[in-house]
Amino acid sequence: MEPIFCGTSPIVGFRFSMHPMSDNFIRILKTALAETDTSNVWMQTDDVSTVIRGKQHHVFNVAKALVLHAAKTKEHIALSGTFSIGCPGDSAGDNYLEVEDELANTDPASQYVSSQFALYPMNNPDYMAVIYREVERAKAHGVWNDSMHYASGIHGDIHEVFKFYEESFTQARTDEHPHLVMTVSMSINSPSHIGGQHA
Amino acid sequence: MEPIFCGTSPIVGFRFSMHPMSDNFIRILKTALAETDTSNVWMQTDDVSTVIRGKQHHVFNVAKALVLHAAKTKEHIALSGTFSIGCPGDSAGDNYLEVEDELANTDPASQYVSSQFALYPMNNPDYMAVIYREVERAKAHGVWNDSMHYASGIHGDIHEVFKFYEESFTQARTDEHPHLVMTVSMSINSPSHIGGQHA
Repeated sequence: MEPIFCGTSPIVGFRFSMHPMSDNFIRILKTALAETDTSNVWMQTDDVSTVIRGKQHHVFNVAKALVLHAAKTKEHIALSGTFSIGCPGDSAGDNYLEVEDELANTDPASQYVSSQFALYPMNNPDYMAVIYREVERAKAHGVWNDSMHYASGIHGDIHEVFKFYEESFTQARTDEHPHLVMTVSMSINSPSHIGGQHA
Repeated sequence: MEPIFCGTSPIVGFRFSMHPMSDNFIRILKTALAETDTSNVWMQTDDVSTVIRGKQHHVFNVAKALVLHAAKTKEHIALSGTFSIGCPGDSAGDNYLEVEDELANTDPASQYVSSQFALYPMNNPDYMAVIYREVERAKAHGVWNDSMHYASGIHGDIHEVFKFYEESFTQARTDEHPHLVMTVSMSINSPSHIGGQHA
């Protein structure tokens, strides 16, 4: 089979699962969804995860708003997901690229987030240099927490954390290497964070 | 910065988070951990995730046992994680490569698992062909569920699902392209699965 090169689509996708560690998990998820304006992204939920697709800044905006609204319940919330762009096997549909640029969710409420991320620049021989550069970017942004096997720890206020993630997701790809994957795991209102004992 | 090529380490790692959707999440996690024999893997937990490292078959064995023991509570359990091998930036330590080959966890109990996975063969120009081939392997194993943006649905009994994941993780890498990443998300005892309504 010949390698496939294209992946020039501007569609950003985020496939994620959000998990409230609570008997009320269904209500918490439904409430967070109802309080988030998702009109600028295409969205589909199945029994394992949810995917949102659209313009990059709308995808990050909706992801952040969903986490923020769920966090306001004060329950322990976890989120794991994968941001993706430029996959040669991706389809052109389900994209919502025609919407306006204005962000739909603008709640400025603060929320401490502890998270971990990993970048996978696909088909890029220089990918390790890209990864090391983005870790340095996290340190420069003041959101770097710790190094660890297979990931880097990123923490701080939710708005700073998501700002870094979106910038890193932009900087870690090029026209020559447009297929980029970024995994993110977050822990919010964790018992481990009580009393300022942030990891 | 020059690209770095090595990644010949046989250490397999799995960084994951397991989330019981229950007020008793701490007790469920601690019980699953106590019932799983983790003596063959190096393990570390922080406020966001847990990582296990060692020989491939022990890493998959421990991961499966943790999920199986948590599932026995009948609570809704979610797991998201990343299997990784051959990262040029990986360190040689924390590996437990000297242990015996005999598997430590052999509970044959059945458990339906719905999951999704994605393969990321790093620095491999032919990576899309590898991915398509592994989707065909899932169909041949009878565990393929559905295609979707950014992932493939894999379901069935937990033992068949993990058997496929371990085989795919072996087949999707080569000596020439040893750095492989595989993301997996699982949903167990989901309200969506009640009454045989498996997605």
